[in-house]
Amino acid sequence: MQLYPEPLAFLIEALRKLPGIGPKTAQRLALYLLHAPVDEAEALARAILEAREKLFFCSICGNFTDVDPCRLCGDESRDHSLICVVEWPRDVVAMERTREFKGVYHVLHGALSPIDGIGPDDLKISELLKRVQGGNVREVVLALNPNVEGEATSLYLARLLKPLGVKVTRIAHGLPVGGDLEFADTATLSRSFLGRHEI
Amino acid sequence: MQLYPEPLAFLIEALRKLPGIGPKTAQRLALYLLHAPVDEAEALARAILEAREKLFFCSICGNFTDVDPCRLCGDESRDHSLICVVEWPRDVVAMERTREFKGVYHVLHGALSPIDGIGPDDLKISELLKRVQGGNVREVVLALNPNVEGEATSLYLARLLKPLGVKVTRIAHGLPVGGDLEFADTATLSRSFLGRHEI
Repeated sequence: MQLYPEPLAFLIEALRKLPGIGPKTAQRLALYLLHAPVDEAEALARAILEAREKLFFCSICGNFTDVDPCRLCGDESRDHSLICVVEWPRDVVAMERTREFKGVYHVLHGALSPIDGIGPDDLKISELLKRVQGGNVREVVLALNPNVEGEATSLYLARLLKPLGVKVTRIAHGLPVGGDLEFADTATLSRSFLGRHEI
Repeated sequence: MQLYPEPLAFLIEALRKLPGIGPKTAQRLALYLLHAPVDEAEALARAILEAREKLFFCSICGNFTDVDPCRLCGDESRDHSLICVVEWPRDVVAMERTREFKGVYHVLHGALSPIDGIGPDDLKISELLKRVQGGNVREVVLALNPNVEGEATSLYLARLLKPLGVKVTRIAHGLPVGGDLEFADTATLSRSFLGRHEI
């Protein structure tokens, strides 16, 4: 016998698909959404739908945006000849918090990972190459996560970018190896940016 | 400067309102919902809206249901003269898993907690009294959480129910005091149900 009525079972199932949400947490969140004011539950549903409707990839840097080009790419006061390459949109936020970097970004949306079936075509790599080939780029800073996938992707990108005559650097290993860019504190991330070196 | 475009900031904000979801997790879930297949994100939004639209309180037991009376209250094979009172819908599921209980339920949707401003009128207590006054009820088993609020609510209910001439019992304290009914293992919950005693 089904223990929850169908609409509730469906909601628990949908919540379970979220990363890090197990069956107990999904059940707790679902019942919270039923007990919460109806406005609050509807606001969440609407926020999900609107985010998917209104957000798209910036045609320049590949980050999520609701205007094209995105606010960072459209900012004339930034140095557009300096591109910082990161894996995820949240890494842009982490870099911006350091207030150390005044260039622009390129978001790959992941790193090479043959074991997960993620190859160069699954990342915004061809977009990066086109951007550099377009000229006016002085330096590309690789700020990928300091783990196996990030290292491999950095080496892969360096090999593709250097023949294009651009300076390729990477942020220093001030970050703990095996860690995640997202969780670095601002000072560490700041230092690792200043200590970047050519590869 | 805002670090995320508005629709994404709204989504992170809406997710942060969920219990146990902090700013980092909200950000991670929001970006997951953007990277996931659009079907999956829309399914979650739809599941939230449909759960709120289709589910309501059973007119008999107060549990969430999409039919009235709910499947448990409508089940003629169960003993309708034996009512098990629980705090939350998830506690019904926990009790059902023991396969020990063949009566029906009453869901209070919380426990008395003056510190949180939750009084008798915020719980489905008057509905329980009416149900018992309606006759045909032999025994009311109190299966509230074994913590301060649950204890207080049990005593409060016992005082109201006993004058109605009904047998009032509670599940045994096989449960660790200060714990939560939801997390009890089936065997412990089973034993505590069998060891119930009159108060």
